[in-house]
Amino acid sequence: MRYPTHLLKVIDILRRLPGVGSKSAERFAFQLINWKKEHLEEMAAIIQGIPAHLHHCQECGCLIGDTLCPFCVEARRSSGFLCILASPRDAFAIEDTHEYHGLYHVLGGLISPLDGFGPEKLQLEKLKTRLKTLPLKEVVIALDSTLEGDTTALYLKKELDPILIPQGVSTSRLAFGLPMGSSLDYVDGGTLARALSSRAKF
Amino acid sequence: MRYPTHLLKVIDILRRLPGVGSKSAERFAFQLINWKKEHLEEMAAIIQGIPAHLHHCQECGCLIGDTLCPFCVEARRSSGFLCILASPRDAFAIEDTHEYHGLYHVLGGLISPLDGFGPEKLQLEKLKTRLKTLPLKEVVIALDSTLEGDTTALYLKKELDPILIPQGVSTSRLAFGLPMGSSLDYVDGGTLARALSSRAKF
Repeated sequence: MRYPTHLLKVIDILRRLPGVGSKSAERFAFQLINWKKEHLEEMAAIIQGIPAHLHHCQECGCLIGDTLCPFCVEARRSSGFLCILASPRDAFAIEDTHEYHGLYHVLGGLISPLDGFGPEKLQLEKLKTRLKTLPLKEVVIALDSTLEGDTTALYLKKELDPILIPQGVSTSRLAFGLPMGSSLDYVDGGTLARALSSRAKF
Repeated sequence: MRYPTHLLKVIDILRRLPGVGSKSAERFAFQLINWKKEHLEEMAAIIQGIPAHLHHCQECGCLIGDTLCPFCVEARRSSGFLCILASPRDAFAIEDTHEYHGLYHVLGGLISPLDGFGPEKLQLEKLKTRLKTLPLKEVVIALDSTLEGDTTALYLKKELDPILIPQGVSTSRLAFGLPMGSSLDYVDGGTLARALSSRAKF
């Protein structure tokens, strides 16, 4: 017996969410069928309202609501720091550390030729203009410690050094090493090798 | 930095899906932000359309689309079999086995006093009326092999036997035993004990 057509549509659209396979999508769909009409309408309205209520800041690319970009305020501008990120979500993660109070720049992705994301998609012109005009002391590259993150970081260094070095702006990248609370038994070899070669005076 | 208000709304509504915690809901939400406007509108329309396009059959409680209930057709009615299920989804699982061609009756849940689902919620009046009027040979109880499933099955037997026995209708329950492809090393003790006590002549 085939599922009713509309149920197949519900399952199909839910499967487009990240990490949701057919089994989870079916589970979600059968749950939605039991929701009250007003809750379904609320969900529909919230989803439909995304383009109207959530934007990317024209300047830094961070995710903002209906307000001015809180990541581009004057206090951050005058800090002299600019942190380069892959996605808008990373800005919230860095903010949560309370260790950083500078500006951000969101690239929108990492170089990954197999996924069709080449260096041109990083749209570095916008970033280069910012680097030339902002009063900077340090650029912090905060990208994943993956092959794509490493590739993008190296590419950025090559592209940005000609602008940053003459201005006396330093570049840094997030440290690699043992995650907090990890035991050496369980840490993978790559992490351990990197932690060893980056060992610090104690 | 707090997430924009609308993003919090998106995360909050997605968290109401079964098995979705805050981390998954955030992941879904950040993905939805990247969707095109027309895809978001399509999703909203599909969700909003659930009450109009998906119904429960008034007779058997199975899930149906805009058509007549395919689970209540005359060929199934004359088979003499009625299968009692907890949820509409189970009917599709049983259909997929191609081993059963009779009618269904969906209870809508299993007795679970801790979750506020007492025996009165099974609405047995409807089922009793069907059992008295349908031409039956056998009633198949197809409920979970859990505490709630066992409780509900025993309660059904006590309630329905006075109707079924005088009519000469037999009652059966799904077999318990080793799942297909399982190795004895990995099967839990309860399953093994049940498989042993229900052993069949070979």
